[in-house]
Amino acid sequence: MTPAVPRRVHHIDVVVRDLDQAEDRYRRVLGIEPLPRESLPGRGIDLVRFRIGETWLILVQPTADDSPVAAFLREHGEGFFHMAIEVEDIENEARSLTARGVRLVTTEPRTGIDGWKLIDIELDETFGAMIQLVEAPEKT
Amino acid sequence: MTPAVPRRVHHIDVVVRDLDQAEDRYRRVLGIEPLPRESLPGRGIDLVRFRIGETWLILVQPTADDSPVAAFLREHGEGFFHMAIEVEDIENEARSLTARGVRLVTTEPRTGIDGWKLIDIELDETFGAMIQLVEAPEKT
Repeated sequence: MTPAVPRRVHHIDVVVRDLDQAEDRYRRVLGIEPLPRESLPGRGIDLVRFRIGETWLILVQPTADDSPVAAFLREHGEGFFHMAIEVEDIENEARSLTARGVRLVTTEPRTGIDGWKLIDIELDETFGAMIQLVEAPEKT
Repeated sequence: MTPAVPRRVHHIDVVVRDLDQAEDRYRRVLGIEPLPRESLPGRGIDLVRFRIGETWLILVQPTADDSPVAAFLREHGEGFFHMAIEVEDIENEARSLTARGVRLVTTEPRTGIDGWKLIDIELDETFGAMIQLVEAPEKT
């Protein structure tokens, strides 16, 4: 079982308190338009994404107090939340990471927007920078 | 004066206390080898970079207590430090941002590794996620 080569930084999430304000500001800072606003109720978030090269920059606002994103916001404040690295086959890569002794939050992927399959790596494996694996079926 | 289109997420910096430990761990997590260690004494940092798609993931350890990176580490702990967005002409883009009312830390670029020219955007413009512009002469 060989490790999959990381293909790209697929997305970077920034947690914000007020998505309207942040969207306006990032539009001005980046000089580009985002996609229309999206919701992921199961995850308790609303989001707006901007495309930069091969990477999505995603602004995320929690919509439920008991969501992981809301907990992160309470503890750390606004700012970078996590980075997702695209792999070709997420189940295979999860097994490969486990075999290399890297601890994962779950071994089964959850589903994000656009059918993205996501697995989080335990935070203390990556020195405070939360990294997740993503397999993006649409290659978006 | 039209805004330059952001070309890619050029690099993402993660601040760590112990570069040796972090390098070993990230090698295991990412399954790839980094470039040889580099130093930027003027900035008070040592660093190791991994290539993921079109983006550098850079682990940074402060080597001087009075460096901005050391100050960040004291205040925020380990984790994501900033993200750099590549533009074609950084002086032009800095003028364009200023004209759009976006505040910059400096209007003149400083020099990073590989001759990268860097300008930081004021942190409160981007809701806690530190973003910088970079012009990379070598297109590395």
